[in-house]
Amino acid sequence: MFLKKKYSFKISMIGAGNVASLLAPELESAGHIITEVYSRHAKNAQALCEKLYEAEVNYNLDFSSSTSSIFILAVPDDRIREVVQQLNLPADSILLHTSGSMPMESLYGLNHIALGVFYPLQTFTKNKEVNFQEIPFLIEASDASTLKTIKILAEGISKNVQEMNSEQRAILHIAAVLSCNFTNHLIRLAEILTESNQIDFELLKPLIAETMGKSLNLGPQKAQTGPAARRDMETVHRHIVFLKKKDKNLAKLYELISNSIMEDYS
Amino acid sequence: MFLKKKYSFKISMIGAGNVASLLAPELESAGHIITEVYSRHAKNAQALCEKLYEAEVNYNLDFSSSTSSIFILAVPDDRIREVVQQLNLPADSILLHTSGSMPMESLYGLNHIALGVFYPLQTFTKNKEVNFQEIPFLIEASDASTLKTIKILAEGISKNVQEMNSEQRAILHIAAVLSCNFTNHLIRLAEILTESNQIDFELLKPLIAETMGKSLNLGPQKAQTGPAARRDMETVHRHIVFLKKKDKNLAKLYELISNSIMEDYS
Repeated sequence: MFLKKKYSFKISMIGAGNVASLLAPELESAGHIITEVYSRHAKNAQALCEKLYEAEVNYNLDFSSSTSSIFILAVPDDRIREVVQQLNLPADSILLHTSGSMPMESLYGLNHIALGVFYPLQTFTKNKEVNFQEIPFLIEASDASTLKTIKILAEGISKNVQEMNSEQRAILHIAAVLSCNFTNHLIRLAEILTESNQIDFELLKPLIAETMGKSLNLGPQKAQTGPAARRDMETVHRHIVFLKKKDKNLAKLYELISNSIMEDYS
Repeated sequence: MFLKKKYSFKISMIGAGNVASLLAPELESAGHIITEVYSRHAKNAQALCEKLYEAEVNYNLDFSSSTSSIFILAVPDDRIREVVQQLNLPADSILLHTSGSMPMESLYGLNHIALGVFYPLQTFTKNKEVNFQEIPFLIEASDASTLKTIKILAEGISKNVQEMNSEQRAILHIAAVLSCNFTNHLIRLAEILTESNQIDFELLKPLIAETMGKSLNLGPQKAQTGPAARRDMETVHRHIVFLKKKDKNLAKLYELISNSIMEDYS
């Protein structure tokens, strides 16, 4: 507690969505003060303020009289530029975004403001607690002193903080899309396929859980099984013929991933 | 133990791979007797026999003098037909296969033999213990009395036994390929992408674990996040442009799955 007090920053949250809603209370627990919350939808900002000690709603993007030294932008990627254009910040403050995909340069346009990235590599859902200590934070800054500040901020809530430039972070984000959003969607496609054929999707859950456990523990290459990996062309072909009758795009997807697996195990 | 004794079957295992190696000891624990093990590679059969009480190696597919009443075929799908053609079984015995993908009809060709399917929906690795109680067994039989026998056999080791015909089982198997083999391969592609760009793949593991937990608990549709689900076309497009420069097939895969996600959330 003593050490944390030593680095107590005043912070404003710009955005009150999933990321901001979990990050702001966590930063407070680490000894920082959230002074203001802005959201395009004032009632979201209000709801977040109610979970915080001293924060007040900022009804617009003019923060020129804010006492904060750090401004954390947690809005959807495609709104970052628009918000930055309207922002008014006190001189010599730090502006951070929390996006994996957007380069630090997307924050350009403000004078006398240090820039940085504060990207938690995790999926957030409002009201679902996460253990921040285990979340990797990828950080970047426009100068060494700002990097030091962001590092203190990140290390106060996570034990896994790494500096990473915008290009590598963008690649990491693509890898996250492949290994998370896309895997989840393949599970969704399995759900659609089973349910539309009067098969209980629940049957697959123990297998999915075991497969994911193996993938993370043994590594995905050692964990691979199935018709494509063992080059059982008869089964691969039978599956494609079956899917073509039901859903041409799914058949194409099946073929493409099977080919990619066969290439990897050749 | 008393109840299990009541239904003690003599069983021969044809095959000594991953499935047979875990299934045979489990059936023994449930009170059955494994009499013989056959494998194309006799030393695999020998290794499995060493883990069992009374089993002996059968060096060929002639089981005509066997005392077993149940013969479990646990060989790769594309070897089933070839093995069946060479099999010699005692009259009035039961022949089962353990495949998700192959129809029961793939066992046709033997006279006075009842047929059935005994499909454990799980991924097996030799020497890695699994909890059979949680594994769904999908069963099918050529007649009612055989179905009853297979049901007793399955319920002795699993609490989740369901009758399912060959067509539905084949669809379930495709769904398993999508949600397990393919998800694992997407994690592999993420591993390749990060490592070939000097990014630590380990960074993604907490996110993958959280995503899978959400997918299984909330269901994959509610759990979906990411650029395609929120129709962030700018990010989707930027990712495709990036991947096209690295790997055209991966770019195509990214586009196909993103389109499929967008369709699902439209």
